[in-house]
Amino acid sequence: MGVGHHEAAWRHPRTEPARLADVRHYQELARIAERGKLDSVFLADGVALHGNVRHNALGGLEPLTLLSALAAVTDHIGLIATVSTTYNEPFHVARKFASLDHISGGRAGWNIVTSAGEAEARNFGIERPAHADRYARAAEFLEVTRKLWDSWEDDAIVGDRVGGLYADTGKIHAIEHAGEHFAVRGPLNTSRPPQGHPLLVQAGSSEAGKDFAARHAEAVFTAQQTLAEGQEFYADLKRRLVAHGRQPDELLVLPGISPIIGSTEREALLLEKELEDLIIPAYGLAQLSTMTGIELTEDALDRPLPDVPVETEGAQSRRKLVVDLARREDLTVRQLLGRLAGGRGHRVVAGTPEQIADQLQEWFFSEAADGFNIMPPILPGGLSDFVDYVVPELQVRGLFRYEYEGRTLRENYGLDRPGSRYATPREVAVAR
Amino acid sequence: MGVGHHEAAWRHPRTEPARLADVRHYQELARIAERGKLDSVFLADGVALHGNVRHNALGGLEPLTLLSALAAVTDHIGLIATVSTTYNEPFHVARKFASLDHISGGRAGWNIVTSAGEAEARNFGIERPAHADRYARAAEFLEVTRKLWDSWEDDAIVGDRVGGLYADTGKIHAIEHAGEHFAVRGPLNTSRPPQGHPLLVQAGSSEAGKDFAARHAEAVFTAQQTLAEGQEFYADLKRRLVAHGRQPDELLVLPGISPIIGSTEREALLLEKELEDLIIPAYGLAQLSTMTGIELTEDALDRPLPDVPVETEGAQSRRKLVVDLARREDLTVRQLLGRLAGGRGHRVVAGTPEQIADQLQEWFFSEAADGFNIMPPILPGGLSDFVDYVVPELQVRGLFRYEYEGRTLRENYGLDRPGSRYATPREVAVAR
Repeated sequence: MGVGHHEAAWRHPRTEPARLADVRHYQELARIAERGKLDSVFLADGVALHGNVRHNALGGLEPLTLLSALAAVTDHIGLIATVSTTYNEPFHVARKFASLDHISGGRAGWNIVTSAGEAEARNFGIERPAHADRYARAAEFLEVTRKLWDSWEDDAIVGDRVGGLYADTGKIHAIEHAGEHFAVRGPLNTSRPPQGHPLLVQAGSSEAGKDFAARHAEAVFTAQQTLAEGQEFYADLKRRLVAHGRQPDELLVLPGISPIIGSTEREALLLEKELEDLIIPAYGLAQLSTMTGIELTEDALDRPLPDVPVETEGAQSRRKLVVDLARREDLTVRQLLGRLAGGRGHRVVAGTPEQIADQLQEWFFSEAADGFNIMPPILPGGLSDFVDYVVPELQVRGLFRYEYEGRTLRENYGLDRPGSRYATPREVAVAR
Repeated sequence: MGVGHHEAAWRHPRTEPARLADVRHYQELARIAERGKLDSVFLADGVALHGNVRHNALGGLEPLTLLSALAAVTDHIGLIATVSTTYNEPFHVARKFASLDHISGGRAGWNIVTSAGEAEARNFGIERPAHADRYARAAEFLEVTRKLWDSWEDDAIVGDRVGGLYADTGKIHAIEHAGEHFAVRGPLNTSRPPQGHPLLVQAGSSEAGKDFAARHAEAVFTAQQTLAEGQEFYADLKRRLVAHGRQPDELLVLPGISPIIGSTEREALLLEKELEDLIIPAYGLAQLSTMTGIELTEDALDRPLPDVPVETEGAQSRRKLVVDLARREDLTVRQLLGRLAGGRGHRVVAGTPEQIADQLQEWFFSEAADGFNIMPPILPGGLSDFVDYVVPELQVRGLFRYEYEGRTLRENYGLDRPGSRYATPREVAVAR
């Protein structure tokens, strides 16, 4: 996403595709976001080259490696990386996030994904696992990871040089996990993360995805096109949360939104049009073909979207969103491509800073969102416009912070710090 | 290694064990090393909690995550991370090193290890693979990784915004690897690393390890106690290199050395004694028991090392080194522990800056070393002493640089930049 979330962003004169693998570019973006007091940087990811690199700026940096370099030049902003549970080992993932949490002073977050794609499976020499299997593995993966983060109790390190006692080994635990997918002895060889557990984020909207989120996640990144859909998703997720014995405020719902900002509405619409004119239909057609599972060619551009078969596997929820959007607004394939190019299924809103703020406010007060994942169409300009014009508008309305409330990502999200499961009750009380 | 390479370093008043997971501590160390124009930072690693954390400062940060944060605050120094081929997937490792290479502007290096330990296997739910199997996997792992680094040719990115052509997809290749251990389609989803391939380092000294190094590595980190052994290892490796059709200068031999530096010889010996007095015998005994495969208790401390069985598996070369050392110098177990505590089998030299420089010079001119892996007994003091007193001594002798010669780690090592195997001949010529 180094150039922006609009698929044609790289062609726009206000972006810098030549800096796609330049860490200083991302450090500048992180500093802009921190200037705007945003909660966190969120890096999407996949472990395959998705999309046609002929027509888009792809091939950037691996998120965990990148976030560590961003931690070094920021002080407050959270750092959320997407890592798949399907093609990894919990020991590595627990250790890397624990390390990032230490390096950032408690600002790490993990966006847990299960990797729906065929292309990813092919990079790891396995058949693409079925949807249910991926989620079963994800649940056990997360369980192991949490045990490893708990394996060092908060007060395990004594550091008595004179007595020669570095750590109380009664407070460092082998986890002895033996499950269906993993057998892991532990303990972790990185001490307990400052946040206890890095923040847990989830982004799938399938049934299994929502169930996983309601059980485990603390923030959900979701694509919702209309207020009604957003409200329905929000209410559904909060209901599921309660059914799992959790409080509604233990999980934050964060719909994606791509704000196209202008100093006037006309200017915003011009920028939107300018980006639309840069779209390469062949690129979007290939994406849409993958998303819908039907082969679409240039002949289809000015006709309605053909019937799309219902499948039982894969990224179903995104497919449904796309088909619903095309039907609801009676779009041709070309028009649909234009709508999707903005945020790959996420809501696109063009307008003045006040109009953008109105939208965010409406969703927030209508129980469709606890916050938002801001996906600027172009970077860095779209982010600095948001920070410089929309954030102050939200601040004067009393809807956004002037300063970070806490030191860690959890504190800024208003979430508890988990104690270690291996601690005796008294120690849990101290840790919290 | 945050407190130093002496196993009792954490108890010494000039170290800071409380900063073991503090990134700023490592950033300071990297800046000191860079001030001294050292080639690189080298981070050893394992994927289990090795050693008894009751008596040593363990549980620090994961190397790749840490090095990325060091890249952000340094400009010249190389960044070498140890990553195992036994418990990883080549796609992830290729991508993370490619990312680190981009982030650091071409300063990444990979120390390739195969993880001999039982404890590591238990964290990944598998039986510890046999020595030969680990090296067979390592060879194929590296082959896949290199193919992935080559999958984007150097001139694949076109970046033509007006024409809408981001990359020439004729120069981005699926690698279609199908081998005994891995099936990986590719291409990588991170563009070609600045160095072509990050620097390849190897550290095992078994027969299989030396063969692997002679085929693939560009630097070897090795433990050699005496000049004669060092010369033999050096000559053997360079011979093997030639047998594989490589030039002798395509691989640098870098023995480890732990310099205990004093402004007088007496001061150096006092520091050595001071550290020796801080050794906790129980800690070293446990390490030595693991290393030799025989159970050693405190009763054994003042007797010679018992007979050690020869095994066909595991870290044989280190075991032989330890037994040879005990026999050659007729050491009791307690004395052996003292010798090993300094550098876990690496050579320890106590003396003035001139005496340390003499030793380095002797090994260098006697064809026992192309360079050294400097393992300060205590950090940061042992490193700043080396940089401030030994480096200038080497410089006036004409043995060490005053300024970095190049921009990348390869350039500073005097090694070629590999071209992409997928490039047509003319393009290889351009790339080199």
